[in-house]
Amino acid sequence: MVAPLKVGLAGLGTVGASVVRLIAQHRAELTARCGRPIEVVAVSARSRGKDRGIDIRKLRWVADPVKLAADPGIDVFVELIGGDGNPARSAVTAALKAGKSVVTANKALLAHHGVALAALAERHGGALNFEAAVGGAIPIVKTLRESLAGNPISRVYGILNGTCNYMLTRMEREKLSFDECLKEAQRLGYAEADPSFDIEGHDTAQKLAILASLTFGIRVDPGSIYVEGITSITTADLEAADELGYRIKLLGVAVKTDKGIEQRVHPTMVPKESAIAQVMGVTNAVTIDAEGIAPITLVGPGAGGVATASAVISDIADVARGVRSAPFGRPSVRLTVSRKAPMQRHEGGYYIRLLAMDRPGTAATIAKRLAEHNISMESIVQRHRGPPAGGAAKGGAPVPVIIITYATTEDAVRKALAAVKRDKVISGEPQLIRIEKN
Amino acid sequence: MVAPLKVGLAGLGTVGASVVRLIAQHRAELTARCGRPIEVVAVSARSRGKDRGIDIRKLRWVADPVKLAADPGIDVFVELIGGDGNPARSAVTAALKAGKSVVTANKALLAHHGVALAALAERHGGALNFEAAVGGAIPIVKTLRESLAGNPISRVYGILNGTCNYMLTRMEREKLSFDECLKEAQRLGYAEADPSFDIEGHDTAQKLAILASLTFGIRVDPGSIYVEGITSITTADLEAADELGYRIKLLGVAVKTDKGIEQRVHPTMVPKESAIAQVMGVTNAVTIDAEGIAPITLVGPGAGGVATASAVISDIADVARGVRSAPFGRPSVRLTVSRKAPMQRHEGGYYIRLLAMDRPGTAATIAKRLAEHNISMESIVQRHRGPPAGGAAKGGAPVPVIIITYATTEDAVRKALAAVKRDKVISGEPQLIRIEKN
Repeated sequence: MVAPLKVGLAGLGTVGASVVRLIAQHRAELTARCGRPIEVVAVSARSRGKDRGIDIRKLRWVADPVKLAADPGIDVFVELIGGDGNPARSAVTAALKAGKSVVTANKALLAHHGVALAALAERHGGALNFEAAVGGAIPIVKTLRESLAGNPISRVYGILNGTCNYMLTRMEREKLSFDECLKEAQRLGYAEADPSFDIEGHDTAQKLAILASLTFGIRVDPGSIYVEGITSITTADLEAADELGYRIKLLGVAVKTDKGIEQRVHPTMVPKESAIAQVMGVTNAVTIDAEGIAPITLVGPGAGGVATASAVISDIADVARGVRSAPFGRPSVRLTVSRKAPMQRHEGGYYIRLLAMDRPGTAATIAKRLAEHNISMESIVQRHRGPPAGGAAKGGAPVPVIIITYATTEDAVRKALAAVKRDKVISGEPQLIRIEKN
Repeated sequence: MVAPLKVGLAGLGTVGASVVRLIAQHRAELTARCGRPIEVVAVSARSRGKDRGIDIRKLRWVADPVKLAADPGIDVFVELIGGDGNPARSAVTAALKAGKSVVTANKALLAHHGVALAALAERHGGALNFEAAVGGAIPIVKTLRESLAGNPISRVYGILNGTCNYMLTRMEREKLSFDECLKEAQRLGYAEADPSFDIEGHDTAQKLAILASLTFGIRVDPGSIYVEGITSITTADLEAADELGYRIKLLGVAVKTDKGIEQRVHPTMVPKESAIAQVMGVTNAVTIDAEGIAPITLVGPGAGGVATASAVISDIADVARGVRSAPFGRPSVRLTVSRKAPMQRHEGGYYIRLLAMDRPGTAATIAKRLAEHNISMESIVQRHRGPPAGGAAKGGAPVPVIIITYATTEDAVRKALAAVKRDKVISGEPQLIRIEKN
């Protein structure tokens, strides 16, 4: 009988409690799969007495997670505390320094301190696994780390935040406003009381930073990501997208360009028939484009106690099996500083929605400004309202104009729209959504 | 500098040549990812002189693949010969007996001799990796073998044959007949001159046998699979499916039931909004249902030289990294003999298309026979033709009747339809397509 792998777990929220329960429940199966039993032997959390639906009386209680992390009685430390500060950071550091393996679901910690922690893991011989930090139960971290080694990846992109995708799905299907949707999402527990971290794209950016590192061998650096959330998206945009053959998704995109690795998070028009466009509700998905082959897409639950616990247990199982991969797919010293491709030089198609003054010459002015910046239009549609009740319109309320451009640069679009604004032929701010082709 | 992993490769078709080319091309990247270089040092194929677009002059040529397999100069033997007989089988056996690791794309070999080969690999300490045998570049083998360990899988199903999915897609989109599509597929190289292995479902069955073993810890056994191909599918079925909110896909399904593991390959009605229904053309996809979480779906190219080579190289990279997982996810001695769930006891919804005699009482007779076998109908639609040119019909040509049943058993449906046939109220054979809910 091989000795069991002894697990110390800090953080007994929904995920932590599920990990403890599932490991006990599937003990025989896990032993068969890993060649040795896995046993949770000690836990740490803020409150000892709380009812979590699991029996923790047989587990050793260690009040201080940092102490638990370095405890000689454990082989692997599972960090489910969260946050990039202490005690999560100090506990993970302590565990790695003690030569233990660490399994964590903490995207913030990895986004901010991932490279340093990877270096520690390598120096002391422990694993640092974090499947649950991105895409919940979807095995995307392992896939990028260990599979697809054969041909270089040119682009990785995905729906990484369930809250945003849930909101966009409901706005699209039920023609609900952003604010109505947000309230619904909060009521159902899909959005936090303070939703800004999700809806402004920062959660997606942290996850993208991790995926980009695994994909391109660059240092994890959320600071080099262009981030734009979904707060400006309206049902008018979703309807226009639908008519044009697109859906709008909040994507995290990392792509190799000749100017460096472009990392960006923004609402994106994706072709309706693409795999990523089919992903509705709280589901997550990641698409990988590798050279010379059709895209690979992984779809699944991005959050939830059991889904996240499932990823945590996969990571623990890898430790039990003795699998030791470099945390970001290659030795941390070989991770390069990403040459940040400036967003101004981003190239792609654009959807532009303007509120144009309803008077002669407006469309011509807009078209001229775009042409001056070498922007070719794939289509321009002026949204007519029904004929006004009182007869023909003369200089009425502004009318929506929707433009789809061929590939151009962010810089050109920004400058052209600034010129259009100066011409005073539009009302309010133009809406700008990038198009991502598959 | 760690010693390179030395590869001997047998079979230099499109896949083999791509493996040799990609390994040379991405040498630095692979070294960084695996911690050691990977070098193809010797090859074997039928013809030495053939132009394959790669330079094999620097590689050692070994005419006999079985000799290459046991060659002391190699660490890993890559078998791309194909077929479940010799020399593929004898070469893989020789390599494993010599303690080498084996990477193969050979589904037939694994379907028929997988357990014996896995036992050999375990006894002699080599790896036996076969990511490329199922789903091309999709990392489904590794996912089932190493990920998702946390909660037991209740069902795995997928589109595993690109030829069939290509044909069904074109039949659906362009309303082409089966025979027209097959000719097109053959012309484009998506179908073999003798297409029966693909279109009769046997290719899917071999792949399903491998997935079922990985998923449920049962011995690989294609003989225990119920197999039905797509040759009976007509555009009438595809149109009816569309109207009813379904698409028809050839699925391989392995599901845990209280009667044992049910393994079956057949045309299947899947809800249009499911991830698997979106998969069009030659693309493959596999969906995994694990307890307590939403389904996980992996989509990607199921065939093609570069896609398959990519999976082969991932497997070689795992050998280089020192990853040794049990070939079927747990020790071969622990793989159980699957209690074959008899197809007669399969439970599910059914689509039934009949050509009913156009005379009074026909519908009542059909409904009565179904009721006698406790089959509840979700819907019954009689397809009316336009009114005949000469006025009202009286006992004209048979009219299509389409029935969707609630969950029932295969046995009940078969018996009810036999009774309907005996009643002589239908013409020809009834069409029967199983419905798979997501």
